[in-house]
Amino acid sequence: MSDTTKIALGLDFGTESVRALLVDLDGREQASAVSAYQHGQITDTLPGTGEKLPPNFAFQHPQDWIDSSAEAVQEALKTAGLTGDEIIGIGVDFTSCTMLPAKRDGTPLCLLSEFAAEKFAWPKLWKHHGAEKQTERINQLARERDEPWLARYGGIIGLEWFFPKVLETLEEAPHVYDATEVWLEAGDWFVWQLVGADVDRLTRSTCQAGYKAMWHSNDGYPSSDFFGALHPKLADVVETKMPGQMLAPGVSAGNLCDEMVQRFGLKKPVPVSAATIDAHAGVPGAGAADPGAMVMVMGTSSCHMLNATDEQSVPGVAGVVEGGILPGMFGYETGQAAVGDAFDWLRQTVGEENFDQLTEKAATLPPGAEGVLCIDWFNGCRTPLMDGSLSGAFTGLTLGHGAHHMYRALMEASAFGVRWIVEILRENGVPVEQFIATGGLPHHNPLLVQIYADVLGKPISVHPSKQGPALGAAILGVLAAGTEASSFATARDAILAMAGTKPGEPDRQPVVVQPDQEAHNAYSRVYADYRKLGDFLAS
Amino acid sequence: MSDTTKIALGLDFGTESVRALLVDLDGREQASAVSAYQHGQITDTLPGTGEKLPPNFAFQHPQDWIDSSAEAVQEALKTAGLTGDEIIGIGVDFTSCTMLPAKRDGTPLCLLSEFAAEKFAWPKLWKHHGAEKQTERINQLARERDEPWLARYGGIIGLEWFFPKVLETLEEAPHVYDATEVWLEAGDWFVWQLVGADVDRLTRSTCQAGYKAMWHSNDGYPSSDFFGALHPKLADVVETKMPGQMLAPGVSAGNLCDEMVQRFGLKKPVPVSAATIDAHAGVPGAGAADPGAMVMVMGTSSCHMLNATDEQSVPGVAGVVEGGILPGMFGYETGQAAVGDAFDWLRQTVGEENFDQLTEKAATLPPGAEGVLCIDWFNGCRTPLMDGSLSGAFTGLTLGHGAHHMYRALMEASAFGVRWIVEILRENGVPVEQFIATGGLPHHNPLLVQIYADVLGKPISVHPSKQGPALGAAILGVLAAGTEASSFATARDAILAMAGTKPGEPDRQPVVVQPDQEAHNAYSRVYADYRKLGDFLAS
Repeated sequence: MSDTTKIALGLDFGTESVRALLVDLDGREQASAVSAYQHGQITDTLPGTGEKLPPNFAFQHPQDWIDSSAEAVQEALKTAGLTGDEIIGIGVDFTSCTMLPAKRDGTPLCLLSEFAAEKFAWPKLWKHHGAEKQTERINQLARERDEPWLARYGGIIGLEWFFPKVLETLEEAPHVYDATEVWLEAGDWFVWQLVGADVDRLTRSTCQAGYKAMWHSNDGYPSSDFFGALHPKLADVVETKMPGQMLAPGVSAGNLCDEMVQRFGLKKPVPVSAATIDAHAGVPGAGAADPGAMVMVMGTSSCHMLNATDEQSVPGVAGVVEGGILPGMFGYETGQAAVGDAFDWLRQTVGEENFDQLTEKAATLPPGAEGVLCIDWFNGCRTPLMDGSLSGAFTGLTLGHGAHHMYRALMEASAFGVRWIVEILRENGVPVEQFIATGGLPHHNPLLVQIYADVLGKPISVHPSKQGPALGAAILGVLAAGTEASSFATARDAILAMAGTKPGEPDRQPVVVQPDQEAHNAYSRVYADYRKLGDFLAS
Repeated sequence: MSDTTKIALGLDFGTESVRALLVDLDGREQASAVSAYQHGQITDTLPGTGEKLPPNFAFQHPQDWIDSSAEAVQEALKTAGLTGDEIIGIGVDFTSCTMLPAKRDGTPLCLLSEFAAEKFAWPKLWKHHGAEKQTERINQLARERDEPWLARYGGIIGLEWFFPKVLETLEEAPHVYDATEVWLEAGDWFVWQLVGADVDRLTRSTCQAGYKAMWHSNDGYPSSDFFGALHPKLADVVETKMPGQMLAPGVSAGNLCDEMVQRFGLKKPVPVSAATIDAHAGVPGAGAADPGAMVMVMGTSSCHMLNATDEQSVPGVAGVVEGGILPGMFGYETGQAAVGDAFDWLRQTVGEENFDQLTEKAATLPPGAEGVLCIDWFNGCRTPLMDGSLSGAFTGLTLGHGAHHMYRALMEASAFGVRWIVEILRENGVPVEQFIATGGLPHHNPLLVQIYADVLGKPISVHPSKQGPALGAAILGVLAAGTEASSFATARDAILAMAGTKPGEPDRQPVVVQPDQEAHNAYSRVYADYRKLGDFLAS
C-alpha cells in the first residue's frame, strides 16, 4: 500500500447490521465488513424490562450503532491492511425514518436510567407502525387546511415518517415528549456522535428532513400554526426541540472527534458527510450522476429514485426534495413496500426451502403467468397510492396452476408497480430515461430483472457493485473531504470515477438486460388488467 | 345368510374409480368394494400413441368401466359372503356429462383400430374443457333465436355438457363425427353393455338427457332447425345418431345379459335401472324423499339438488327436469365446479402432505380469515354464472397471513357459493327448507360443515352413509326390480326404508351441525364482499 493511497469510508446502517466499506478513489473496494447489532430489531420485548411490545412496534438500540460500526471499521481496516491514516472522508447512510428523542448533550433518552423502562423513549425503527391514528390525523388536517407542502408528497404522508412518530410519543407518553430536548433522525444522531455531541455541532440531513419530515429548502418545516392545530404542545416543536444546521449529503458536518478516531482505529480527524437515507445513497453508489436515470434499489422493499432538473408535483410520489439526493437537482423518491419480502412470504407460504424450484419453473412460463394475475400490495401500496392498509391479491387461479404461477405473477406485479410509477412521473412532466437496478435482489434474481425490462420495454443496467448504498456513502465522504483532498472538481466527477462503468475492467461493467418486444406487448395487455384490478381493490 | 335375503347392487362410477355397494332392503350395507380404473383420468397423453393432449382435455377408457366394475362386484360379493343369487336389482350412477361416440353394436369408436390413435374418438370425461368456442356459439345462437329450452338452464348452458362436446368433435375431427353411429352418455353406454349391446336395447336416462342434453319430457331435444343453424351436419344428429328409449332412473332398462351375469359373478339375470347422474343418486341415497330438502353432494366438485312441486325458471340454475331426480317432482340441479378439488389444489400448492396442519390452524381463525377473501371458481363457476372460463382468486393477503388463512378463506368461499345458490332459488320461488350434506367431504371435514352451517345460518344434517350415491344407485336398482320383488309400494317407501334415519340405530343417525348466530352475522358481512368481488371478476 503506497502512502499516497487515498481511501473513503462508507458506513451503511441497515435494519439488522451495519456495513463498513473501504474504497479507493477509483472505486476499487479495499475491504468491507459487516457487524450485526447486538439487539437486532427490537420487536418482541423491551431490553432490560422484558415488557412485551405491541405487534406493530419496532425499536433499535443506539449503543448498537456505535459498537457495531466501530467493530466493522476496525475489521475492514485489518482486512485491507490499512493503518487508518489513508482515510480522507467518511459518509454515513441510515435507514429512515429511524428516529429518537435525545438530550442536548446527545444522550438518547432510553440510555438515561429514568427512561430506560419507558418504551416511548427508545429509538423507533423505520418500520415501527405505532402511529396509524396520528398519520391519519396529520393527513386529514393537512388536506383540510390545504397545506402547501402536501403536494410535494403526492397528497399524502406516510405512517413511517418523522412527525407521526413524534406525535405518537406526545400523545402516548407526554412525559417523554416533555423530557426530550432534541428530536432527530438516527442518521443525524450518529453523525453528531462522530463529530462530537455538542448541540452546536448538531447538523441535520436535508435528505432525511426533506423526504421524511416535510422540510423544504425555501419553506422549512410545516408552520407552527399547523403543528399547534395538531396538538397545542407541538406548536413550538421545531423551535424548541429540533436544533441543528441543515446540510445536504456530501457536505461536511465536521471532523471526526478524537474519541471516535480512537474507536474506529483511525489516525487523524477526517471530514464526515451529513447523513443520507440508505436508499438515496444508492444513487451515487450506482454511478447515476445525471437527471432522468431511475435508480431502483431493490431489496425487501424497493426504493426508486430519480433526479430531475425541475420540481413537479406528482400525485402519490413520496417526496420531491431539492438537493435531496445530489446537489443541484430535484430528487424524486418513490417506492414499493414489499418486494423481496413478498417473494419470501410466497416462498414460505408455498412451503419451499429456497427459490430454486420456483424460479426454474416460473422461468418456463410465458408473460402473464398463464392467466394468473397478482397485486403486490402485501405490505400496502407506497407509490402511488400511499396506503398501508391495502393488501395483496391473486386472480385467475385454476386447478391447473401451481405455486410457480403465483411466483411469476408476483414478480410481474412488482414490475407492473414500477411501470405505474414511471407512467405517473412521465405524465406529470418528470422525464424517466434510463433504469439502473441495484440492491441485493437484481444480482441473484436475473429472471426478475428480465421481467422488469420486458414490462418497462427498456434496457435495465444492473450495477456491478453489490453494496450500492455503502459505496454511495463512501462517495459522499469523498465529497465532504473537498476538492483539495480528493482532486475531484465536481460531484459528477467523483461519482463517475468511483461508481461509473470502466471499459476494460470486467467487474466494473454493468449487466445490461435488454427488453423483448414481444413480451413487452404481451405485458402491456396484462398491465391493463393489473391496473383495473388495482382500481377495484383500492376503491 | 338366509336364502330369503334380498340384496341390491349399486354401482357408482367416479372420476378415478368405481364403487360396488351391496345393501339389503333395510339399507344395511353388506359389503362394498372400490376398483381404480387402470388408465385413471387420461389427461396427459393418449394411450397407445403417447400423443400429448391439450391442457384442457380429459378422457376415460371404456374398457376400464367394464373391468373395474366386474372386479369391484366380485370382491364385494366375496367380502359379504354372498353367492350372487341374492341380488334383485342393479342401479348405476355415473359422472356426467361423460360421453362417447360408438357404433350401433355398442363398440366405442376408440376401441376400433382405425380410430384408436384419434383423440376425438375417445370418451370425453365430464371435466374435458375442449369445447369453449362451441359452448359460446350454442349459447349465443340460443339467445338470438330465443330458444324456449334456454330458460330451463338459467339462460346458459355449460361447457361440460353433451352437445358442446358433440359439436367440438364435429368441427375438430369431422371424420370421427361421420363414423359415429351413436352419441351417448357413458352411463347409458354402460347400462347398454349390462343389458346386451344391441341397438334395440339402448335406453337413455331422462336424468342425463334432461340435465346435460337440453331434453324435456314434453318438448324433447332442441329442434333440428336449431342444430342445423349451428352446423349443417348437426341438423339430423338426434334422428340419425341418438337412438334409444328415454327412461327415468328407477325404471328397468332390461335384465342383465348372460355375459355380464358371468363377469359380475351373479347367478341370474336381474333388472338394471336406467342410469342416473352420480350426484343425483345422492338424493335418494341421503334419504331425501320430500320437496324443499337440499341435498349437498360434496366431493371433488359439489352438486346441490333439490326437489320441488313446481317448475320455475331460475337464472343460472343448471337444470330443472321433471322426474329428473325422483318420479313426480321437479328436480333442480345446481353445482359448484371445484370443492374438494380446490382444497386439494391449495394443499398441493402450499406444499402440504395432508390437511392436518392446515385444518388445525384454520380452525383457530375467526370468520373472515383475518381479512383474506377467496373466490372459489378454480374450475369455473357452475351455478349461478354457468361460466367455465371464470377462475379463482384470493384478496386481502398480507405478509402476516399464512397458507391456513388461504385454506379457511377457500372453505368460506365454498360456503358463500352455496349461500348464493340458495338465495337465487328462493328469490325465484323455489323453497329451500333443509340441508342434508353427503358425499366424501362432510364426513372427514367437520370444520367445513360448521362453516357451511354458520354461513347459511341453518342446521346441516350430515347423512351417516359414507357412500350416498352408491346407496342411491342401489335404491334405484330396487325400484327397477319392481314392487313384487321388493315389496315397496312407492319410491318414497324404498328411500325411507333404505336411506332414512332409524331411531335407535346409532349408525343411521345423522350428525346435525347447528349454526352459530354470531358467526352467521360476521359471515353475512364477508359474503357481501364475496359477491362484490365475484361481480368484478365476472364482469
